[in-house]
Amino acid sequence: VKTIEEFRKFILKGYLDYRPNLVVDCAIFGYDGEQLLVLLVKDKIVTKWCLPGGYILKNESLEQAAARVTDERTGIASLFLQQFKTFGDVGRNGNRGSWDEDEFTEFLGVKIDGDSWLSGETASVGFYAITDILNAQPSTDFLSSECRWFSVNDLPPLGFDHEHMLKEALLAMRMHLYHYPIGKALLQQKFTLKEIKQLYEVLSGKKLNATNFPIKLQTLGLLTKLQEKKSIGGHRSPTYYKFENEAYEKALNEGVVLV
Amino acid sequence: VKTIEEFRKFILKGYLDYRPNLVVDCAIFGYDGEQLLVLLVKDKIVTKWCLPGGYILKNESLEQAAARVTDERTGIASLFLQQFKTFGDVGRNGNRGSWDEDEFTEFLGVKIDGDSWLSGETASVGFYAITDILNAQPSTDFLSSECRWFSVNDLPPLGFDHEHMLKEALLAMRMHLYHYPIGKALLQQKFTLKEIKQLYEVLSGKKLNATNFPIKLQTLGLLTKLQEKKSIGGHRSPTYYKFENEAYEKALNEGVVLV
Repeated sequence: VKTIEEFRKFILKGYLDYRPNLVVDCAIFGYDGEQLLVLLVKDKIVTKWCLPGGYILKNESLEQAAARVTDERTGIASLFLQQFKTFGDVGRNGNRGSWDEDEFTEFLGVKIDGDSWLSGETASVGFYAITDILNAQPSTDFLSSECRWFSVNDLPPLGFDHEHMLKEALLAMRMHLYHYPIGKALLQQKFTLKEIKQLYEVLSGKKLNATNFPIKLQTLGLLTKLQEKKSIGGHRSPTYYKFENEAYEKALNEGVVLV
Repeated sequence: VKTIEEFRKFILKGYLDYRPNLVVDCAIFGYDGEQLLVLLVKDKIVTKWCLPGGYILKNESLEQAAARVTDERTGIASLFLQQFKTFGDVGRNGNRGSWDEDEFTEFLGVKIDGDSWLSGETASVGFYAITDILNAQPSTDFLSSECRWFSVNDLPPLGFDHEHMLKEALLAMRMHLYHYPIGKALLQQKFTLKEIKQLYEVLSGKKLNATNFPIKLQTLGLLTKLQEKKSIGGHRSPTYYKFENEAYEKALNEGVVLV
């Protein structure tokens, strides 16, 4: 949605193109070498920061809808995407923060009533994405005034039930860490043991045992030591490592136990 | 739904009570001491075995709907229930096995057309449940001709996309094994190390490393050795163990790493 006309058409006739009462919301995680980040949008209507999300087109799957939403917000078409939970508590859409119905009607020029395809309980399928922030271009749309990265340790208050969603996204991602080599998307082509260890510390949110991940990745043939060394000055020159693509794809599809 | 009148009312007026285009389906797992089982219903319309499922009432959460469905099929009100994935591929409802539309219209006495609240893509929120089969009473309803346990290693062909769903339920449950003490619901109050080791072998689907689970459970204070020993004849008398309720509830809420 890019203009008020498009938005009005969505409100009045959206049921022709979209599934009713179901949306996707995406926790897009990024890593800047030091911290775990999440991409938030400032919603013009709710006037709070929210996870990016949207309705699902009738001719797309849930996964395709999540890929479209994350592409629209980051400019990257194929992020690592993982469904983590669907949220459907009664009244969750009612929790619209500071949204004032009259203000919204005025903003829009049309009133949403009980007969609207947008009324009724709406469940949200939650996805998380793992993003290379160097290539991401955070973008707003007609409904958002800002779109930017926040540290997961320093978040603003979120709209709807998105605080709960983000907490569940983190829990799921941290469980998946033990079963899928999801760190690959956040590292450069080649990296040192120190770099991958720090990534796992940040992703898992704890120092403890972060060393086990690279060791286990090596044991399972997912990680290979290169001949090349990184030159970081003085007498120190740590060896580079890389992911083995074939073993990586297999582990991503079939799952492993990384502890 | 218990009678043809109730079913006809559901078809024609169900939108008054239920959310449209969203259902829950439940993989209800059980354990008979030797094998992992799953409860299936023979659907009268699809005439295939399916996972039990149903629409979600407007005044209930997804979790409450899953608890209602599993209660209706097993007679147990509070099973260990875990959401594992939502299925929303385009055309998944079209895959109705041997369902013949004319036959269905005749069976029902009314025709479902494109304006029906039941038409359009319907997504399914998948839950798995862990059940004590000794206390479960498999029950049919108006739409099912049979309801019984099958070994997960010897399944009949399933309707809709339920084969894919069940596979994903197993994958998720096997990942959760490493993070939640979900074995408790399948064991008696007290049990031997051999019994819990066998349970983990069956749940995880592999012999390898099954011993690690009870060891780790003990290390984390979830399992306690009792003074009491089991009398199994001869000179053998293995010690009984039990789960520590408080630590168990905490681990179930917060997650652990069981490897």
